[in-house]
Amino acid sequence: MTNHKNSELQHERIVFFSDAVFAIAITLLIIEIKVPHIDHDASDRDFWLALVKLIPNFIGYFFSFFVIGAYWIGHHKIYGYIVRWNYGLIWRNVFFLMAIAFMPFSSAFFSETPGRFVPLVVYAVSYAAAGFLELWQWRYAVKNKLIESDLSSSVINYFSWRLTYLPIVGIFAILIGLYNPLFASLAFLTIPIVQRIINSRFAIDADKMEVIEDGLENED
Amino acid sequence: MTNHKNSELQHERIVFFSDAVFAIAITLLIIEIKVPHIDHDASDRDFWLALVKLIPNFIGYFFSFFVIGAYWIGHHKIYGYIVRWNYGLIWRNVFFLMAIAFMPFSSAFFSETPGRFVPLVVYAVSYAAAGFLELWQWRYAVKNKLIESDLSSSVINYFSWRLTYLPIVGIFAILIGLYNPLFASLAFLTIPIVQRIINSRFAIDADKMEVIEDGLENED
Amino acid sequence: MTNHKNSELQHERIVFFSDAVFAIAITLLIIEIKVPHIDHDASDRDFWLALVKLIPNFIGYFFSFFVIGAYWIGHHKIYGYIVRWNYGLIWRNVFFLMAIAFMPFSSAFFSETPGRFVPLVVYAVSYAAAGFLELWQWRYAVKNKLIESDLSSSVINYFSWRLTYLPIVGIFAILIGLYNPLFASLAFLTIPIVQRIINSRFAIDADKMEVIEDGLENED
Amino acid sequence: MTNHKNSELQHERIVFFSDAVFAIAITLLIIEIKVPHIDHDASDRDFWLALVKLIPNFIGYFFSFFVIGAYWIGHHKIYGYIVRWNYGLIWRNVFFLMAIAFMPFSSAFFSETPGRFVPLVVYAVSYAAAGFLELWQWRYAVKNKLIESDLSSSVINYFSWRLTYLPIVGIFAILIGLYNPLFASLAFLTIPIVQRIINSRFAIDADKMEVIEDGLENED
Repeated sequence: MTNHKNSELQHERIVFFSDAVFAIAITLLIIEIKVPHIDHDASDRDFWLALVKLIPNFIGYFFSFFVIGAYWIGHHKIYGYIVRWNYGLIWRNVFFLMAIAFMPFSSAFFSETPGRFVPLVVYAVSYAAAGFLELWQWRYAVKNKLIESDLSSSVINYFSWRLTYLPIVGIFAILIGLYNPLFASLAFLTIPIVQRIINSRFAIDADKMEVIEDGLENED
Repeated sequence: MTNHKNSELQHERIVFFSDAVFAIAITLLIIEIKVPHIDHDASDRDFWLALVKLIPNFIGYFFSFFVIGAYWIGHHKIYGYIVRWNYGLIWRNVFFLMAIAFMPFSSAFFSETPGRFVPLVVYAVSYAAAGFLELWQWRYAVKNKLIESDLSSSVINYFSWRLTYLPIVGIFAILIGLYNPLFASLAFLTIPIVQRIINSRFAIDADKMEVIEDGLENED
Repeated sequence: MTNHKNSELQHERIVFFSDAVFAIAITLLIIEIKVPHIDHDASDRDFWLALVKLIPNFIGYFFSFFVIGAYWIGHHKIYGYIVRWNYGLIWRNVFFLMAIAFMPFSSAFFSETPGRFVPLVVYAVSYAAAGFLELWQWRYAVKNKLIESDLSSSVINYFSWRLTYLPIVGIFAILIGLYNPLFASLAFLTIPIVQRIINSRFAIDADKMEVIEDGLENED
Repeated sequence: MTNHKNSELQHERIVFFSDAVFAIAITLLIIEIKVPHIDHDASDRDFWLALVKLIPNFIGYFFSFFVIGAYWIGHHKIYGYIVRWNYGLIWRNVFFLMAIAFMPFSSAFFSETPGRFVPLVVYAVSYAAAGFLELWQWRYAVKNKLIESDLSSSVINYFSWRLTYLPIVGIFAILIGLYNPLFASLAFLTIPIVQRIINSRFAIDADKMEVIEDGLENED
């Protein structure tokens, strides 16, 4: 019973269900930007002004698309090593997706009144929650031996450290926001820097990971 | 003709179509929470108050995400044993998805006026309908031998009992709601307790089912 | 070049992209039913009345879910025999999906003012267009030998007849609607009857098709 | 580590995530067409007039469905030759999807005030951005040897030329729009002509590409 005929299909469902939730959340971002209703006979200047007013929304769209995209890639990365599953993992994944699917709201709320503290807190908390829940999922997978059995501890720790930094960024953003919410995005800019440090700490494995993977090659 | 070259792909389409409907229904929950339009110059207190007003909506979001997530996991579980298909099964699955896709409405309706009886009835009925239609699907699969042929009757009954309890929860919630709709969610809290009882009744098999599945392991 | 390493994956993308469009169109149906905004202190009677007013929308939801579901099943059926592909087929499939994705609009328009002629025409035309475009796709697949090579001509004709009847239903519905749009749905009720006649005409093959398919069985 | 057990699944996730984003963006187009609220007792003429007013929106729907459909097919085509992946490719794909997911906005904006210059610019820029980002992705795949190793340089250049023309169309549309935005769509009509020229330049390979692919045939 532990070895279903369609166990492989069941594994695929976990990632494809996740992919679908990610894809919907990321595409709903555009829905939150309302099309401006401008009189057909208005001047071109009025049209440009209407667009200019939407600039915070556009920035919010690109930023949040980037954020959800990065979370999808993170999910893609850790599931490159998660080769077994159980319902404990699936439940943790559902909770993680709960934070991801919440993002169109927090993104729209922040874009609506950019530079205000409360929407920033909502955004930062939902970002931090997603990071924490992904870390929780990864640690669960490691503890319950759902990952590749020959995975070196440095790769395991590499991911743990990377994921641990995400909730910290959320807290960091809130702290900056206490001074000026507009600068809070600086907290996110630390991610590539910190991840480079983590990368160099676990240099050998991280490098290998970036090596071109053999995709479908190993099919034949 | 009964043995298509792409019969496997056709099987996959059933679960991936279902996964997509689940994913959309679960992600649409956030769409129903309207972003508050607050004046940019309003005080932080006004911002917090606007958030506080949305608390019932947030609770509704998390609760319904959990509910749809649980139904997805239930679908994942029974389709772990459904290894054949026919169009009778597919039609029953479409009807089941009809109840799932209805949930963003019933969830938003209930969150709009929490503690009122009528929205509770709508929520409970759609919940019960989903449970009943999943049970119907499972019984159909069993009767038409679409499940693994060596599946023990205790596993079969285990699922039948678990699924039978879901419509009962809906009825239970309505009965509690006649007194106080706010306490109706207590009906849902009985699920883990009752399922533990059912688990213990079919102890041996339920345990095995929780054993880590071999994921992609058996691929090579 | 005609035999890509990932030709199988490319085939899967056609059906999974289609499944995703179907899933979104079918789940968007609920979005068109606006949650009634009722004062929290309103009487239960007011709540029930608000629900009663939504009955045409609920009927529209269930009816259109059934219609799109039936089209998905039809797509699933013909793609059970389409085992090769080219970009001519893919384009025809995109046009077919254009009609499917239009349905949340025609469904909401009809539910908004049930019993009126113009929304009925919009609904019937989009229904007929989907049927016609599916027939076009099937005939293209047959002519270009994209179907299983050993498929009997009676199965081919069976599908051609079934699909030919769908646009006829649309025209039929409009004709009835000239008298009374509320009775137009009777046109759809003729589908099971006519399909039974078509089934009996191509009896032997249609029967075999209903035989339980071997799902993943033939995997091992 | 470079050769995961589930490397194939990871490759599939890239295209299925892309397919889901495409499917949602293409289906959201209909959401932007608001159902007209007409009094139930209004005359049929009022109903027809309400529909007539929506004609620009319907044209926008069909046009943009066609555009996103064409981009999906383009993605399908290039990923027919991309058989390996790395996270550089994935990031470029995410940026490409950012332009695709933006299209429901630019499409609705243009349909709202057809014939105006500013919405045309938004539409043309988002179209050109998608084309440019797809070209960027293709060139990256070529340079990093993510494509089939035996792919002839004429096929590689064929795609590069085809994709290079798409941003040019966007610029071309804006230039026409300076005179009359309504004629800007003529820029898009040059695509089949130019692609025929490119096809004839790379005749041998382009022809082979159109040969019916063996779909699932090569499975057994």
